[in-house]
Amino acid sequence: MASAEQVEEGRALAPKFDADGLITCVATDVATGDVLMVAHMNAEALQKTIETGEAWYFSRSRRALWKKGETSGHVQRVVEMRIDCDQDAVWIRVEQQGPGACHTGRRSCFYRAIPVGKGRAVTLEFRDGEKTFDPKAVYDKS
Amino acid sequence: MASAEQVEEGRALAPKFDADGLITCVATDVATGDVLMVAHMNAEALQKTIETGEAWYFSRSRRALWKKGETSGHVQRVVEMRIDCDQDAVWIRVEQQGPGACHTGRRSCFYRAIPVGKGRAVTLEFRDGEKTFDPKAVYDKS
Repeated sequence: MASAEQVEEGRALAPKFDADGLITCVATDVATGDVLMVAHMNAEALQKTIETGEAWYFSRSRRALWKKGETSGHVQRVVEMRIDCDQDAVWIRVEQQGPGACHTGRRSCFYRAIPVGKGRAVTLEFRDGEKTFDPKAVYDKS
Repeated sequence: MASAEQVEEGRALAPKFDADGLITCVATDVATGDVLMVAHMNAEALQKTIETGEAWYFSRSRRALWKKGETSGHVQRVVEMRIDCDQDAVWIRVEQQGPGACHTGRRSCFYRAIPVGKGRAVTLEFRDGEKTFDPKAVYDKS
């Protein structure tokens, strides 16, 4: 097993998967820097992403490997992939193909803001909340 | 319990904490768009971040609430906070105080790249890997 020093300062990929065999992946838009989505990868998804240069994930709800865009065509081409200090999270900068990354029909999954510094009562505020595609038309093809 | 429609399209904050009571938080640098760190918040950390406008987290290893910068002084001022479609992840755009966010002494935790599209053998490549502060001097104050 790698030491903390090796994990943090080494050049060997030593991903630290959680109890479910997953690491967190953050995908940002290479053009805007916006976070598009946060999802998870298992070892196979990580390997396929590295090999193909396109984003693969593992769906926790469906318990299945999943290529981003396999249904929608909204593939993510990975421009750069980075791993964090303790190797339990990856960050991919992607070219998002098509109108968006979010299954609700939006460019990004992060389309609502939480007001901060204004007390305890919270009402979410939509930001860039307009749908850029019709999720029913894209996902319900059967 | 909120329906998927309410969670995804509503204005009510309904964070979906995991079995350990945590949600994932991605912090990006408001100036550069770079991902600084990925960490976790429990309900209290989320509430304190919303109330104070500064980032609070929950340390899984120390099982403790943790204000970012409480030891180092490297506080994160939250410029904007967003939550994702299914409300199990938050994204904060922050002004990072001091020289960096990473406990290894770097601006970002994501200082190594994984080459993609070049086959199975992986050697990490340092990017922006120079230390911007001495972590021993900053964290070992006792």
